[in-house]
Amino acid sequence: MPRLKLVLEYDGTDYVGWQPQTNGPSIHREVERAVRALVSEEVTILAAARTDSGVHAAGQVVCFTTRRALPLKAYWMGLNNLLPKDIAVVEASEVAEDFDPRRLARGKTYRYLIFNRRAPSPLRLRTHWQIFQPLDVPAMQLASAALLGRHDFSAFRASDCQAAHPVRELREVSISGAAGGEIAATVEGTAFLKHMVRNIVGTLVEVGKGRKPVEWVQQALESRDRNRAGPTAPAHGLTLMKILYGESLQSGAIGGGAAIDDELD
Amino acid sequence: MPRLKLVLEYDGTDYVGWQPQTNGPSIHREVERAVRALVSEEVTILAAARTDSGVHAAGQVVCFTTRRALPLKAYWMGLNNLLPKDIAVVEASEVAEDFDPRRLARGKTYRYLIFNRRAPSPLRLRTHWQIFQPLDVPAMQLASAALLGRHDFSAFRASDCQAAHPVRELREVSISGAAGGEIAATVEGTAFLKHMVRNIVGTLVEVGKGRKPVEWVQQALESRDRNRAGPTAPAHGLTLMKILYGESLQSGAIGGGAAIDDELD
Repeated sequence: MPRLKLVLEYDGTDYVGWQPQTNGPSIHREVERAVRALVSEEVTILAAARTDSGVHAAGQVVCFTTRRALPLKAYWMGLNNLLPKDIAVVEASEVAEDFDPRRLARGKTYRYLIFNRRAPSPLRLRTHWQIFQPLDVPAMQLASAALLGRHDFSAFRASDCQAAHPVRELREVSISGAAGGEIAATVEGTAFLKHMVRNIVGTLVEVGKGRKPVEWVQQALESRDRNRAGPTAPAHGLTLMKILYGESLQSGAIGGGAAIDDELD
Repeated sequence: MPRLKLVLEYDGTDYVGWQPQTNGPSIHREVERAVRALVSEEVTILAAARTDSGVHAAGQVVCFTTRRALPLKAYWMGLNNLLPKDIAVVEASEVAEDFDPRRLARGKTYRYLIFNRRAPSPLRLRTHWQIFQPLDVPAMQLASAALLGRHDFSAFRASDCQAAHPVRELREVSISGAAGGEIAATVEGTAFLKHMVRNIVGTLVEVGKGRKPVEWVQQALESRDRNRAGPTAPAHGLTLMKILYGESLQSGAIGGGAAIDDELD
């Protein structure tokens, strides 16, 4: 039976997140509904990452096994006709029977967008954390270096995080600032704790606002105490960009984007 | 009596455009309502450009005269508290009594965004014309050169356009394409006919799709016949970026953005 891997893009604004909840529509349910309608079968959908309520994705990866063998293009185009406009399949490929999008992921890349100007920007309402006070981007860049590598990230972990242990490895934490107020943080790691990226961004913004010195981020990390780090940045600035797999896992990808063409470990 | 000039940004998705219409809310009415609430006076709001239904703005300019003299910051911050979230004042400044935002404009800059990939992009639903067929961007760039300068733009003018004559001057028509599918067209001119930018973009896209040769754009222009040019590109890809004035008109600008700091004639 063919096993399909889909790369999804979605605008998380109107969803309770990937996981089904009682208080609104979930991405999982919409995708499951569309896939079931396409293959006329009760398939189970597995995702690489459980994105929170309001968080977006440009490269979420989901998998399912079906008895219904269709040309790859049919999954991709057919599902886009069945999905709501704020969820889309960017790419479809066939993978090995035992492919597990979550366990086989060797890393994830997130992007967090901030817009920094004294007046609000209606065109960035769904995608950027808008901060009116001027941010010191070079100070944020300096402070972010302390987070690179393998650490106990307890200080950046949501209190209800279910992970077995708090040690994670970050391979990239970069902050870019452009004239006009666009600031983008890119965070790549092997895996993440609950709210970890949003807690990192919220902490770096404290430094950017001048409320805390650059060294404070390292001190917060070393304290392993959530109360010593900054607040959680809002969900709508965050986008899951890419799930990273070994190249050998890719086979016969077809689709619209180069979203995961450059996946490297 | 002080005369105020405001620079506005708005997401035009949920509006019938600048001008009041019977079929939905207009930007004009929302701005007028907010200004009247702030100054407790029946002011008249004049805009530099009448944006169409669904068209966005990052640098629309509006003016009004009021008996109520407030610090500039009060106009800017006060109005943002009174306006809906999809309309914002980016900057406020005091101008000469006879300042007319429309008549004194020496030019306007529009940006048109296209996303070109085989799969839809939910994160660009409000801002980009999504074209699934691959576009030949260099061909579009070549074709766009024919439109530069002073011409009779009848072929790119909406049939119900009210302008007295069809001659306009374009100072910039540039198309940039980036890896991943982002395409941006920047069009700057002294003034524009109704739907002119959207008709230009729709025509260049015909060349990009390979349906028409590069020379066809010049032939369409010279024909002065609307039926010889391409279709009208959808409104939601278009953003009014800037109204260009002489620098002497600026005085005491205060606000959040660099939106019009670089206005040059």
